[in-house]
This record gives sequence, C-alpha cells and structure tokens, in this order.
Amino acid sequence: MVAVAVSTREKLENAKGASSALAQLSTEQKNELLFEIAGALESRSAEILRSNEEDLRISRLSGAMRDRLLLTPERISGMAGAVRDVAALPDPVNELLEEWTRPNGLIIRKIRVPLGVVGIVYESRPNVTVDAAVLCLKTGNAVVLRGGKEAAHSNQVLAEIMSAVPGVPSGAIELLDSASRDTVQELIRARGLVDVVIPRGGPGLITHVMENALVPVIETGAGNCHIFVDESADFEMANRIILNAKTQRPSVCNAAEKLLVHERIAAKFVPQIVAQLLNAGVEVRGDEATRRLAPGVTPASEQDWGEEYLRLCIAIAVVPNLIGAIDHINRHSTKHSEAIITEDRASAEKFLRLVDSAAVYWNASTRFTDGGEFGFGAEMGISTQKLHCRGPFALRELTSTKYLVLGTGQARL
Amino acid sequence: MVAVAVSTREKLENAKGASSALAQLSTEQKNELLFEIAGALESRSAEILRSNEEDLRISRLSGAMRDRLLLTPERISGMAGAVRDVAALPDPVNELLEEWTRPNGLIIRKIRVPLGVVGIVYESRPNVTVDAAVLCLKTGNAVVLRGGKEAAHSNQVLAEIMSAVPGVPSGAIELLDSASRDTVQELIRARGLVDVVIPRGGPGLITHVMENALVPVIETGAGNCHIFVDESADFEMANRIILNAKTQRPSVCNAAEKLLVHERIAAKFVPQIVAQLLNAGVEVRGDEATRRLAPGVTPASEQDWGEEYLRLCIAIAVVPNLIGAIDHINRHSTKHSEAIITEDRASAEKFLRLVDSAAVYWNASTRFTDGGEFGFGAEMGISTQKLHCRGPFALRELTSTKYLVLGTGQARL
Repeated sequence: MVAVAVSTREKLENAKGASSALAQLSTEQKNELLFEIAGALESRSAEILRSNEEDLRISRLSGAMRDRLLLTPERISGMAGAVRDVAALPDPVNELLEEWTRPNGLIIRKIRVPLGVVGIVYESRPNVTVDAAVLCLKTGNAVVLRGGKEAAHSNQVLAEIMSAVPGVPSGAIELLDSASRDTVQELIRARGLVDVVIPRGGPGLITHVMENALVPVIETGAGNCHIFVDESADFEMANRIILNAKTQRPSVCNAAEKLLVHERIAAKFVPQIVAQLLNAGVEVRGDEATRRLAPGVTPASEQDWGEEYLRLCIAIAVVPNLIGAIDHINRHSTKHSEAIITEDRASAEKFLRLVDSAAVYWNASTRFTDGGEFGFGAEMGISTQKLHCRGPFALRELTSTKYLVLGTGQARL
Repeated sequence: MVAVAVSTREKLENAKGASSALAQLSTEQKNELLFEIAGALESRSAEILRSNEEDLRISRLSGAMRDRLLLTPERISGMAGAVRDVAALPDPVNELLEEWTRPNGLIIRKIRVPLGVVGIVYESRPNVTVDAAVLCLKTGNAVVLRGGKEAAHSNQVLAEIMSAVPGVPSGAIELLDSASRDTVQELIRARGLVDVVIPRGGPGLITHVMENALVPVIETGAGNCHIFVDESADFEMANRIILNAKTQRPSVCNAAEKLLVHERIAAKFVPQIVAQLLNAGVEVRGDEATRRLAPGVTPASEQDWGEEYLRLCIAIAVVPNLIGAIDHINRHSTKHSEAIITEDRASAEKFLRLVDSAAVYWNASTRFTDGGEFGFGAEMGISTQKLHCRGPFALRELTSTKYLVLGTGQARL
C-alpha cells in the first residue's frame, strides 16, 4: 500500500464524518469491534514490537522515559486485555437521564449522546493510543490522536491495526503527524470540527493547549498533592500513608509532594517521619520550623510550595492549625488530591468541605485518585478543572446530552 | 461615599476570596439573602429608574434596542419576583450524587459543589445583571459581571443594591468597567481566578470570547433553527408551528430561521405557507424550487443557509427526503433547536436521533427551548457546545463536583 499524505484538515473532516456513523452503532456492534481490535493487537504483536524497537532505537531514551515507551509481548497482552475490559463496561450512550411532561403536554427527554470528535494530545506512552481510541469507540466518538514523536512508529502501527478492523468507520481513528508542532495547533483550533481536546502530559504541554485552544478543553493532570497530619493523627497510620503516597510510584500525578504538620505535634512527629523518608531515599525539604526539628532537611524556597516534583522529593511545612493547613493547600495546590490524617471527625469534615480539590481524602493515600482505583474500569484522564467533569474520568464523561421534545402541535403562547 | 477605582485584577481576587465564604453558606442563609435582595430592588426602585433614564438619555437608542435597555416600575417588580422564584428553587449544592464502597473499604462520595467564580459577559439588558447575580448566589458562586456600556449606570446601581444587602460576602458580586474592552480581556484570561466565563449576546461577542479566553467557556446562544415539513405532515399543524416559531418573537435565538420541505408535498405545501408568511409580514427567501412554486419569494444565497436573521425573515429549501433534511441541518445549523413536523413515527425517531442539536422537536415549535418553558424556573443561558451542559441551563449547571474519599488508613498496593 502506498501511503498518501493526508492533511490534518482532511483528517479532522474525516473524523467529523465518521462521528455520524459511530453515533449510530449499537452497543453490541461497538463491543464486537472492541473484541476484534483486542484480537488484532495480539495477532499482529510482532509488527507492533518491530515498530516499537525502531522508536527505541531512534530515541535513545533511558531510564523511566525509555520504560514509558517500551512495549513487550506482556504489555501488548495487557493492552488487549484492557480493550476487552472496556467492552465489558456499560455503554452510556442513549441512556435516558430524565423524562418529564410539561403542563402543555410536551414530553421532554434528556438522553446521553456522544461528544462527536475527541482530540487527545499526549506524550510518549503508546498504550494511551489504544486506551483513548477504544474509550472513544465505546462511546461512539471519533478520536483524533496526536502522540509524542518518540512513539511515532509504534503509534502508527497501533492506529493502523485498530482502523483496519472491518466495521470500524473510516475516519473513526485518525492519527496526526507527530513530527510537527503545527498539527497540535490545527487540532486545538479546529472550531466546528472538534468538540473537545484532552491534553495528557507534563505542565508544558497542558499549558500550551490551554493557552492556544479555540475548542473546549478538559484540563488534566498536574498534581501538587498535600497530606496534612492533624494534631489527633494516629502516627503509625500517618507514616504508612505518607510513605505510600510519596514512594510507591513517585512519577505520577497522585503522588504526595507536600506534607503539612500541625504545630502541636510537630516536635514529636517531624523527626521520625523525616528519618523514615530519608531512609527511603527521599530528598526532604522543609520550612524553618521543620529544619529546626530534624537533621538532613534542606531549605524549601517559596517556589517549592507550588512545585510538582514527580520524583523522590517532598517539602514539609509546620502549620499553626487545621485552617492554616486548608489555607496553605487552597493557595498552593493544583486542585488534584489532598488528604488529612486525623482521628477527629469534626476536623476531617471541615477539611473535606473546605479544601477545593477534585478528590479529598480522610485517612487514606492520595494515590487512589485513579479511574481503576475508583472502580470505573478505565480512565481517560484526571480533570483538574471544574467544568464538565472533575477528578478521574472515563466513559460517561466522554458523552454529552441532548433534549428530545415530543409534541402534538404545541406552539408558544 | 467616595468611589475608589479598583483594578479588574483586584475585583477578580475579591471574587475569588468571596467564593470560599459563599461555598459555606447554608441553603437557608442563601435564600434569606435572595429575599432581602428582592426587597431592596423594590424599595430602591426610584434609584434604579433614575440611573436607567441616564443610560437611555446617553445611548439614544430606539426601537427594540431601547426596549431591551428600558426599565419600568413593572419590570423592576418582575425582576424582584424572579429573584423570589430563584429562592424557591431547590439548592443543588452539597447534593450527594453517588456513594459507593470499594473492595478495600474506601467509601467514595461524589457531591455537588459551587464552580467558584463565574464570569458573565453580556450586552444591554439590565435584568441579566440581576438574573446572573442571584443564580450565582443561590449556587454559592461569586459572580463577575461585565455588561454592555449602554447599561452602565443601571448595572452599577443594581450591583450596588445587591452587594449592599447585609450578609452578602464582600466580593460576591463584582461589576467590571464597561467603558473599556480591556476588562473583558482581563476577565476571560484570568486562569486560576475565574472558573468559567459565559458569553451572552450576539455572534461577535461570543466569537470574541471563544477565541480569546484562557479560562473555560460555556458557548451560548446563536440559533439558526430549522423546521422540516415531512411528506406526512399535518399541514394545519405545520402552518401553526411555523408561524409561531417565526413570528411570535423573531429577535430571539429559538425563533425559526429556515424551513425545509419534503419535495413530494412541496407543490401543495409551499404556495400556501409562503402566502401566510408574506401575509404576516415575513420576508421570504428561497431556493430555485421554492421560487418556482410561489410568487413573492426572493433568491436565497449560499450564505443565507448559515445565517441567523433574528428578524421577520425566513429562507425555504425543498429537500429530496428526510435524510436530505437531516444532512442540510447538520451542515448549516448552529446546533441549537430543530423541529420535524410529521405524522410518521419512524421518520420522527430518525430525525430525533440523527439531528445533532441541543434540542430536537417532533411536532412542536422551536420556541420552547428556554429554561422557563423546560420547567427549570430560571435560565443562565442556552449552551450550544457539548461540554459541561447542552441546551437551556440554570442552577444545576452552575455547579461542579468533588470526590470525598473516607478511609481507615488505606495505602495503595
């Protein structure tokens, strides 16, 4: 097959065209396509691995970056399994949300419908290509994928395999050229063709999309997450949660980045948690009060309080009380996930009510902010904005609504 | 009192500060404030009328534009009554939407919370100042109002009266200077301070906000609404609905702008509806087929099919069949409101399913797309985008959600 260069505009128009066909597929038809896609990924895994090797060879990445890009036979099986899991989830499209009758006899129904065309701008993880495509297919949306250039060959093969499954409408899965930044610009400015763009990646990518998009955006991801240890905290529980939230997977958005400690317990709590964190290989920064209480803590600058480290580093501040902790969080957090460790119900309730973040925890690790951990079975991203959806989002949030109004000749008086 | 110039930035920061206080008000407290506001509008109506006279004197508007700006004692009573109506509506804030328990024992609750700071950019109708402020107050949101300069004095007095009610948090109702375009720019680009901006007005205003905003936007309003008369339509019903949708209030977004007629009935239907429309003072434009069938029809250009006239003008096209009508609508409509007139259930269901608009009607006038007519008791606007909300929106859509996660020490494995 000779590849013909197709412009970004044409791809977006193809996606728009496909969205009508996709909206008419039944749940059974869509699930059948998902099973076919899962099978195709497995049966063509050799091709996927070859393209991935090419990406790895060119990029010469190492460490965590290389690991994000790497595909293995096991990871491809995992991707195929995730596709089958999506097939098993309930289809939100056409769900009747509300129905009522007006005094004039009009019957009004509110139903869920696909969004239409969903754009995703992401970085080097090839599994996002498959996840995003199948979540969109399940919800009757066309998807326009714009992945990172490091994964260009892998993404190309993955998109081709999914698009080639018989019955997938032409244009339903479009992949934009990752070699040029222009394709991002065209995607995020295509008013009338694209219904929403979801940026997934680092703060630079997200800010670029927010600042340049003309189409609606769901802001995702950055997590400067806090844990506040209240005066009545169970120290053993606090230690366990803090170490988990900081060290279990430090590179992700729901990892803890800041620790706030009530001043009444600081003298007892701070030295032992600092020792444990240092022992676990964590770089510990702190305000003056923290540094007076424990050795091995380097000074935290004002900039530290707003920073998402995404690595084994944490900054600690001693706060005067619960309200001091809440104020600190609402001023510095990215509104992702924050936790209070306390045995006092009234303090917990106040924290849960007043902290303005997508997910607020009482006596649990911030690491649970995740579609899978919430029980959604899949995840498109984690919204840190307040419009449309907030927190982990998946199938239901890939839909819009529509009003159907049934009359018998009513005209307005 | 000496007015001190306050910068737009300070006003936005005040609003942000007020949003925390507003989020903590109980339903009873908020309703009490709404009743106080209604009373204050009535008791200070002389001031409102004087400021409105000043606006009318300066603007020298006439006709419909003057009428939009004009306040009368009756209209002020109407505004106060609308405020009391909002007090009587259910408060969506703190509503428990879902609660479930995970296998690890975590309890997850999804509750409604205020959006935070809501910005509104609108034109000359002073009643929007009151409607927007009280809908935001009821939902615990701070509001930043940026009205049209024609209504500057009226808006100033209205905002002052509402803000001066004891108990309304300082900064809860901020009014930006309407003399400068810069205040619009500052409002719509204030990431981190403003959670959503809602533009209400003509296409120029809406496009400007969509293209320049850095904060999330709910796109509202433009309505190039269609009525399709199917081959099995009841002519008497079709005539009544078309005349209602076109002539009952032609200046609003849910008025019909286009008429599509199935070609099998065109020879019978078109001449009589054209005669009735002309008789009602409507300018009638049409495609070639329409013009061959009826006298008095002027040619419709390609541009006509996408235009929102907002006056007594309609364009008629003859289409080959139902699918031709659906394709025409999905290509040219603004996705607001469209209707089919048919006695055939299968045709109606196909139309309702395939037309991609916020509200789709079977045998009823498009004029019903309105918060009041839908039974919402109030309206903030009509969304023509698919993100967050679609169609008429009011209190519930002025909220976001938040996850509360209650644990007993859970850490992630």
